[in-house]
Amino acid sequence: MHYTLAEIAAKIGGRVIGDENFVVTGINSLESAENNDISFAEEKFLKAAISSRAGALLVPRKSDDLNQNLIICERPFQAAGRLMAEIDAKAQQIKPLIAAEATIENNVNLGDNLYIGPGAFIAEGCRIGDNCRIYANTFIGKNVVIGSGCRIYPGVVIREGCKIGDRVIIHPNSVIGSDGFGFLQIAGHNVKIPQIGRVIIADDVEIGALCTINRAALDETVIGRGTKIDDHVHLGHGVKIGEDVIMCAQVGLSGGVRVGNQVMLGPRTGSVDHITIGDKARLMAGTQAAKSLAGGRDYGGTPAMPVKQSLRQMMAATHLANDRSRLALLEKKVQELEKLLDQNLCSSPNQKA
Amino acid sequence: MHYTLAEIAAKIGGRVIGDENFVVTGINSLESAENNDISFAEEKFLKAAISSRAGALLVPRKSDDLNQNLIICERPFQAAGRLMAEIDAKAQQIKPLIAAEATIENNVNLGDNLYIGPGAFIAEGCRIGDNCRIYANTFIGKNVVIGSGCRIYPGVVIREGCKIGDRVIIHPNSVIGSDGFGFLQIAGHNVKIPQIGRVIIADDVEIGALCTINRAALDETVIGRGTKIDDHVHLGHGVKIGEDVIMCAQVGLSGGVRVGNQVMLGPRTGSVDHITIGDKARLMAGTQAAKSLAGGRDYGGTPAMPVKQSLRQMMAATHLANDRSRLALLEKKVQELEKLLDQNLCSSPNQKA
Amino acid sequence: MHYTLAEIAAKIGGRVIGDENFVVTGINSLESAENNDISFAEEKFLKAAISSRAGALLVPRKSDDLNQNLIICERPFQAAGRLMAEIDAKAQQIKPLIAAEATIENNVNLGDNLYIGPGAFIAEGCRIGDNCRIYANTFIGKNVVIGSGCRIYPGVVIREGCKIGDRVIIHPNSVIGSDGFGFLQIAGHNVKIPQIGRVIIADDVEIGALCTINRAALDETVIGRGTKIDDHVHLGHGVKIGEDVIMCAQVGLSGGVRVGNQVMLGPRTGSVDHITIGDKARLMAGTQAAKSLAGGRDYGGTPAMPVKQSLRQMMAATHLANDRSRLALLEKKVQELEKLLDQNLCSSPNQKA
Repeated sequence: MHYTLAEIAAKIGGRVIGDENFVVTGINSLESAENNDISFAEEKFLKAAISSRAGALLVPRKSDDLNQNLIICERPFQAAGRLMAEIDAKAQQIKPLIAAEATIENNVNLGDNLYIGPGAFIAEGCRIGDNCRIYANTFIGKNVVIGSGCRIYPGVVIREGCKIGDRVIIHPNSVIGSDGFGFLQIAGHNVKIPQIGRVIIADDVEIGALCTINRAALDETVIGRGTKIDDHVHLGHGVKIGEDVIMCAQVGLSGGVRVGNQVMLGPRTGSVDHITIGDKARLMAGTQAAKSLAGGRDYGGTPAMPVKQSLRQMMAATHLANDRSRLALLEKKVQELEKLLDQNLCSSPNQKA
Repeated sequence: MHYTLAEIAAKIGGRVIGDENFVVTGINSLESAENNDISFAEEKFLKAAISSRAGALLVPRKSDDLNQNLIICERPFQAAGRLMAEIDAKAQQIKPLIAAEATIENNVNLGDNLYIGPGAFIAEGCRIGDNCRIYANTFIGKNVVIGSGCRIYPGVVIREGCKIGDRVIIHPNSVIGSDGFGFLQIAGHNVKIPQIGRVIIADDVEIGALCTINRAALDETVIGRGTKIDDHVHLGHGVKIGEDVIMCAQVGLSGGVRVGNQVMLGPRTGSVDHITIGDKARLMAGTQAAKSLAGGRDYGGTPAMPVKQSLRQMMAATHLANDRSRLALLEKKVQELEKLLDQNLCSSPNQKA
Repeated sequence: MHYTLAEIAAKIGGRVIGDENFVVTGINSLESAENNDISFAEEKFLKAAISSRAGALLVPRKSDDLNQNLIICERPFQAAGRLMAEIDAKAQQIKPLIAAEATIENNVNLGDNLYIGPGAFIAEGCRIGDNCRIYANTFIGKNVVIGSGCRIYPGVVIREGCKIGDRVIIHPNSVIGSDGFGFLQIAGHNVKIPQIGRVIIADDVEIGALCTINRAALDETVIGRGTKIDDHVHLGHGVKIGEDVIMCAQVGLSGGVRVGNQVMLGPRTGSVDHITIGDKARLMAGTQAAKSLAGGRDYGGTPAMPVKQSLRQMMAATHLANDRSRLALLEKKVQELEKLLDQNLCSSPNQKA
């Protein structure tokens, strides 16, 4: 990265206050930026920006307290985002290529403007859309369909028959369409149930590194449009995930779970099989769903309960050891009271009367 | 898939009622099947089958309520399984091949009828049995022995000296024989203990995608015959797993743990190191074993306890916040009672007497 | 391995008592060693050594109870460690090689004495130090810098711009520098925030198999010198890990977490984002940190609390169901006492007076 402030201002539609020819070579946070970096501050961070060592700042307005070179623009955060996207594109720039060291079997339908890296394996019957990147050492099984504009990072394995939409990103070493975990127990042995379903991933889905999304014995495992999945996530056979869902790292959903739209699953949340989680439900880190959960609410705890209740429970639990002592003390006191009364109230009320 | 009902009936030993020439192109569940699919229903699901859109059904008997084409057979579920196995075999069909793009070092002993995909690396001293598939981009380290009929999916890494039995399946990107996590702490630094043990995997074991099964400093890490392991499972150095064990996704067992035969470990169960879990023990999802567990029982909770107790504890815990209020109220009441009695019973019983 | 005892004694500076020409072909624990193995016993294990089937023993002194061939040496455990390191080096021995089947782009700076395996991909602008092993089917992105003496196991993916120190070990299929999980929610959709930060891994770090260490939107994700990380660990965007830290398997730290020096994180510990864990803090297995934790202390539980408190809480919780019954019984008793007193103390104390 090597830009003058004038160039950046032109890119993002801003106005330079200070040295238009000042060159920045990076973008960074207010705390970490050095003199050759540009940083950014929304209105509420203008005060914090004063002490930043950044050589230049994207800000919403002029401020006399700021000694750095400034670019005034309406939405500094979004402007920074556009700049970051440009840097990202440059850092990951790659020329179209079908590497000689890739293996592409017969009867594969390849789109235009593809990058297919060395060691990529694309089996017979596949169809790959335009503008995709299939990085090195990936494996695309028989009859897989991949839309346009996808990015399949190194080491990803997509098994036979799966279908990937447009603009899907799959991060390194994730596994799509591996066998669901299905066995019949016969006389103490576990007999494999063939897993002939397939995985369907809709448009604009992003799947983190080292995830597994399994096929089922029958039927489809589905990830809905726009859903974003972090690293180390496990989705069992036949799960159906809605649109615009967020799943944080290390989530594990057992077979047949249905998740609605715009659901948020925090890190390490899990579920038993075949339950439903309603639209816009949000599960805090570590929540374990043991039955279906209504949409539009926040949950926490094991088993999942309304988040407020789970927080109250969690706080109450921190007093457990002490409360046990209180309980024991009370029992002793009540016993003493009973004894005392027994000795003092010699006759029953009736007799007394 | 493209079968007439007559062909299917011949395959599975059934009898067609309806159009023998009706063609099905898939098999699916009662709910998901479409007109070109065949589905199946055991006796108890015959009612549910009435509304299925499947064009044909495998059923145990004729039923006037069913309008679909029928194939009458003794065990519809098993018959469907045989059909699914055939479809699976076809979908994953592969011709024997030693890919030119594979690297096979010197002194490797290869069996007959192998598929070794492009980018597979097989180091010196390995021995691979007949009828194995070693998919693309796998790594088989020095002196590894693999039995016959194994399926090593893409991206799997098996490090030096490990031994794999017959008919073992290892799903994509799993790592067998990586170093155990062993360090000596010397003066605040962590000094690596060489891990020269090896991993032994017995016949008919299946290991999910993205699993790690570690070697130990010394001695062997062992997975017993017929054991089935789901995705994202971590088995530490020197664990000894029995036969016909089931381990669900995201299980983690620390070093030296011994697991008996026919044990069932639910999703996300874990254990401290060097404990023993007895034959046929079953651990519910999320159970954390903190000491050895006797066989033949069901466990849950943290630390692991009998499952009924863990469920009672879990339910009791949901009342914790409320119970704290009840406890505080009781304390107040008892204090009032004590005060009341103190004021009313001016003299001791003895004095009274 | 094939050594006479005389050869081993010379190697480790010991003295043979017994047959100097006795040949051992392995080293193993006292329990697992067979007659062709050597084993070892510190002073306190000399008694246990009597029944070992090992053909030879490394021991600190002569003992008449021991019938095996002996090598007397000052520190048997360390001596065994040196022997194990030699065996390990032999088992993993590899000749320097730049495999013809590796892809090395232009403008890559390669050190001396390298092993670069088949299928390794090294992008333009990389710099690799001396004596490294870059195993088969690895992916090293653009402008990555790797120090000397590193071991990058098969299937590892290091994305563009990351920096790896000297003597770093990364086990198979781990992913360094994958995108952090950062999205803006705009009108119900999740819009990706470009992740242009990088990952810096210092000298002598070891990273287990199947780990993810993510880059951030900006700034650096840092792993400090000498830190050792077990398998299946997830470190979110922008975490800063200190020196000589130990992280056990399946740990997950959310974005921006800071971990001090010599911290110990047990298996399956997790944290919310942007907290700090102080130097030498130790977190027991399963601990979930919900806020910053002071250094020098031991923690357990959810949310993290002092370990003694968490153990007390855990034990108290096992009585929860029973305690609920006790509480209910007490409530009944107190109610009866109140009633009894109400009936017996007809007049108030004042009235009585």
